[in-house]
Amino acid sequence: MRIKDLGEFGLIKRIGRLLPPCSGDVVVGVGDDVAVVDTGGKHYLLLTCDIQVENTHFLPSVSPYQLGLKAAAVNLSDIGAKGGEPLHFLVSLALRAETSVEWVDEFYRGLGEGASRHGADIIGGNLSHTQGPQVVDLFLTGRVKKEELLLRGGARPGDKVLVTGQLGNAKGGLFLLTQEDLREKLTPERAEALLTALLTPTPRVREGQAIARTGKATAMLDISDGLAQDLLHICEASRVGVRIWAEKIPFSFALEELGQLLGTPPWLLALEGGEDYELCFTSPAEEAEELAEEVERTTGIPVTIIGEVLPQEEERWLVTPQGEERLLSPRGWNHFREAKDGS
Amino acid sequence: MRIKDLGEFGLIKRIGRLLPPCSGDVVVGVGDDVAVVDTGGKHYLLLTCDIQVENTHFLPSVSPYQLGLKAAAVNLSDIGAKGGEPLHFLVSLALRAETSVEWVDEFYRGLGEGASRHGADIIGGNLSHTQGPQVVDLFLTGRVKKEELLLRGGARPGDKVLVTGQLGNAKGGLFLLTQEDLREKLTPERAEALLTALLTPTPRVREGQAIARTGKATAMLDISDGLAQDLLHICEASRVGVRIWAEKIPFSFALEELGQLLGTPPWLLALEGGEDYELCFTSPAEEAEELAEEVERTTGIPVTIIGEVLPQEEERWLVTPQGEERLLSPRGWNHFREAKDGS
Repeated sequence: MRIKDLGEFGLIKRIGRLLPPCSGDVVVGVGDDVAVVDTGGKHYLLLTCDIQVENTHFLPSVSPYQLGLKAAAVNLSDIGAKGGEPLHFLVSLALRAETSVEWVDEFYRGLGEGASRHGADIIGGNLSHTQGPQVVDLFLTGRVKKEELLLRGGARPGDKVLVTGQLGNAKGGLFLLTQEDLREKLTPERAEALLTALLTPTPRVREGQAIARTGKATAMLDISDGLAQDLLHICEASRVGVRIWAEKIPFSFALEELGQLLGTPPWLLALEGGEDYELCFTSPAEEAEELAEEVERTTGIPVTIIGEVLPQEEERWLVTPQGEERLLSPRGWNHFREAKDGS
Repeated sequence: MRIKDLGEFGLIKRIGRLLPPCSGDVVVGVGDDVAVVDTGGKHYLLLTCDIQVENTHFLPSVSPYQLGLKAAAVNLSDIGAKGGEPLHFLVSLALRAETSVEWVDEFYRGLGEGASRHGADIIGGNLSHTQGPQVVDLFLTGRVKKEELLLRGGARPGDKVLVTGQLGNAKGGLFLLTQEDLREKLTPERAEALLTALLTPTPRVREGQAIARTGKATAMLDISDGLAQDLLHICEASRVGVRIWAEKIPFSFALEELGQLLGTPPWLLALEGGEDYELCFTSPAEEAEELAEEVERTTGIPVTIIGEVLPQEEERWLVTPQGEERLLSPRGWNHFREAKDGS
């Protein structure tokens, strides 16, 4: 069997089953975005890594400054999604010998800026030569107060589903990056907004911490693979179902204009699009509105209730703006295969 | 300027200068093999990573089981070289979609075995697709009692220089791997020993801990780039010079036989060869022999005094078996360029 037949998430599950059980200090191991270790104090130690490969995650033409900023953001987002405080980066780079030293300077300028915006330090790493696609792999530690840790597995039937910000902008940016003609048809500042969302996303670190501090959230993750796919992660880890209302999914005017050009409803782009790095979280129904208001007030970022958690046997549903209920498909970003089920 | 013009170590220095200063909890940042963080308890937190790229660090034909074992060893060795205890691995993989799932299984079998031999857990990671060379990047945390931490920068003039085990076997293995005819000329069990040293090196974790516990060592690192290159790291960090006695450098009968076939003195292969993952450390002259005996006794691994630390202005010297003093050159493993100075 090839990896592409099993897919990324199938492979992760297989690896999880292969590994021997962890020591008692490991609170969360393989399977979440972040590993959680109990080092004995008031905080848990958080560990995460994200590998970015040329031609898979970024084009050779991307500016190294933007690449550094984005690589930082992707990791910071993981720590933020646990309610955590980012601490220390290690940086692994595989570079071609012909790459200019100025490229490396600019990459580190972006990375350093991204890290310092959230109080994190770059404290080490590893350099290697490659003859193929360049690779950027960041490792980030963080910490979270034990009582504030949020995982994927805490959602309960009756909870509401909430998201920060607007979804789908990064997917919009990807359309513009790969289809030059589309870009020319869109209002310039809107095109710019979509491209910025893709190339230099803003990790919701302060928002994640604010959500965790309220004590009113039950589960959380960052939307890296697309809302539909990441909801599935929450449903699997929490053993619940979900109902999402398409008309509640927040999207930008820019995405709306792009949707018109593409003949695709913007909520569908927002539902399927990956790399938004907004947060998706759950909260008991009676506390969800108060939580949303509190986080909006302290962070200035809009928070929207987009659905509700169901018992597992009621499965996963999307309610279209026309009121039709459709089975929610896990379509999202899979690194090894395209969704072929036509969903 | 291209990376190949600056070289790996030049680039690391440049990056170190670019980065903003770290927070007060960072004891050791960019420039050592391991970053050291003070989290407030009795131990320091150690963080390291090592990226392995297909065609740069390993051939496509290597067994994934051996690759997993070696990737673990490279990182475990870094923690051991600080006197530390390995704790938690994260695993970043960039794989081709056509790679078999069984390849991944075997890789994790090797990695898991390597980790568990030293009490470390695999607790997370990240999978990505690549269309180019496959990449294995491991992150490893560890801890060390604050009073037992050993760095590169503690060597003092008058100290002795010591190494564990035998040097150059991995370089011998590389000759055999790349020159089929050589392999056939060597005694089979000796060929096997050299290849094993290259493909599945034994990290000196217990030895590093034993050395640190004696309280008699002043500086330490693992020999990954070759003794000559790694001695230079100690000399730079400690601001000292060094004199190494070629006839004291420990090597195997297998390397001696290979040296005869190649027409190269085995001590020169041992001096220049990378990837041995033995430990090189320093100790005050009056304590060095006792330290060597103590570590040999507790670990069963031979320890050899091979040189002495000089004041910085006396520079770095190699005494050949014929008694000639030659300037020691930093020839070693540089990922981005070949040594061209004929040294």
